[in-house]
Amino acid sequence: MDKEISQAVIRRMPRYYRYLGELLDDGVERISSNELSHRMKVTASQIRQDLNNFGGFGQQGYGYNVKFLYDEIGKILGLDQQHNIIIVGAGNLGQALANYVNFEKRGFVITGLFDVNPALKGRKVRGIEIRMLEEMADFIHSTQVDIAALTMPKEQADAVAHQLVELGVSAIWNFAHLDLELPDHVVVENVHLSDSLMQLSYNIVKKKLESI
Amino acid sequence: MDKEISQAVIRRMPRYYRYLGELLDDGVERISSNELSHRMKVTASQIRQDLNNFGGFGQQGYGYNVKFLYDEIGKILGLDQQHNIIIVGAGNLGQALANYVNFEKRGFVITGLFDVNPALKGRKVRGIEIRMLEEMADFIHSTQVDIAALTMPKEQADAVAHQLVELGVSAIWNFAHLDLELPDHVVVENVHLSDSLMQLSYNIVKKKLESI
Repeated sequence: MDKEISQAVIRRMPRYYRYLGELLDDGVERISSNELSHRMKVTASQIRQDLNNFGGFGQQGYGYNVKFLYDEIGKILGLDQQHNIIIVGAGNLGQALANYVNFEKRGFVITGLFDVNPALKGRKVRGIEIRMLEEMADFIHSTQVDIAALTMPKEQADAVAHQLVELGVSAIWNFAHLDLELPDHVVVENVHLSDSLMQLSYNIVKKKLESI
Repeated sequence: MDKEISQAVIRRMPRYYRYLGELLDDGVERISSNELSHRMKVTASQIRQDLNNFGGFGQQGYGYNVKFLYDEIGKILGLDQQHNIIIVGAGNLGQALANYVNFEKRGFVITGLFDVNPALKGRKVRGIEIRMLEEMADFIHSTQVDIAALTMPKEQADAVAHQLVELGVSAIWNFAHLDLELPDHVVVENVHLSDSLMQLSYNIVKKKLESI
């Protein structure tokens, strides 16, 4: 891949992957871009354009081979590799993430759970033991950690993120409600739930105004 | 507002709101677009363009009045109104949402929690009682419900979403890993955690390739 692919395209790829996975489950072997377009409610030309960023995958008149396209998009998304994840913050949200078995099917394996609350020490979530935050450095030194999910309050998130980066973790899945300022080599993906809720309320107000 | 404002602009507004809130907390009364640009790491021209969609708010040479801008963006985002939320699915994720006190500060009040698991019946999360799903219709008929958050497994989400819409709920905050097909008057905001994780892993792979 020598040209830069926009994050807008990347944001759409997991959705393709999801739909193709459902087609596979339904036993569909081949699909035209028109049919895929109809299911996904995007234009066929959008689909062709998006996939052309990665070199195509369709043959004119033959449509797409579902299994091949699914696997190729999986590779593009790095799902052919295992990613070990630790979750820092074992409250409800951290435990919810630890309980998502579907992550594991896609190669995301949760290997550690950390918290500062001594009451949680030693408890297990889906077999994963909750450890104390001060054990985190040793854990990272002794096992491979690819991603750290931050599910603790905003106040502690910045310090923990910097500690993780110093320990060599270079991918952060950030649920804390702040923008982390980290070195360039670190990849950050934010899930800002409040922002999402505000976007929803904007659209509620807009719909109301339109219907007056 | 007579012209259509792009969802890309809307997606940026909660972030402005968050930064302005922090400035307010720090006692800052006035800020130039350059200074705001520096803090938010977007160009000053982007800020001016974004805000011009809503008619501006800045005076040339005087910068922005922080409190005024904060309040105006709050109004744009519908945060000057109360939104009552029910959460359908009282597992870890539903309970995590119910525990977010910050939502309430912005006018999002969680009024009900529902689940199908009888073991959860009557338990309380931050004072909010968990009710059974079959009580939901009566609840919606007798109280104002503006938003329903769907935090149950994908398999049940579609049926529950349709039931909610029939009961008159017209805004869905969807955490289930599927795209809901609902009537046009219904507003849907998706939080697809798996998609977010795949985007992160795409960027991890990309960084690795760049550093070779």
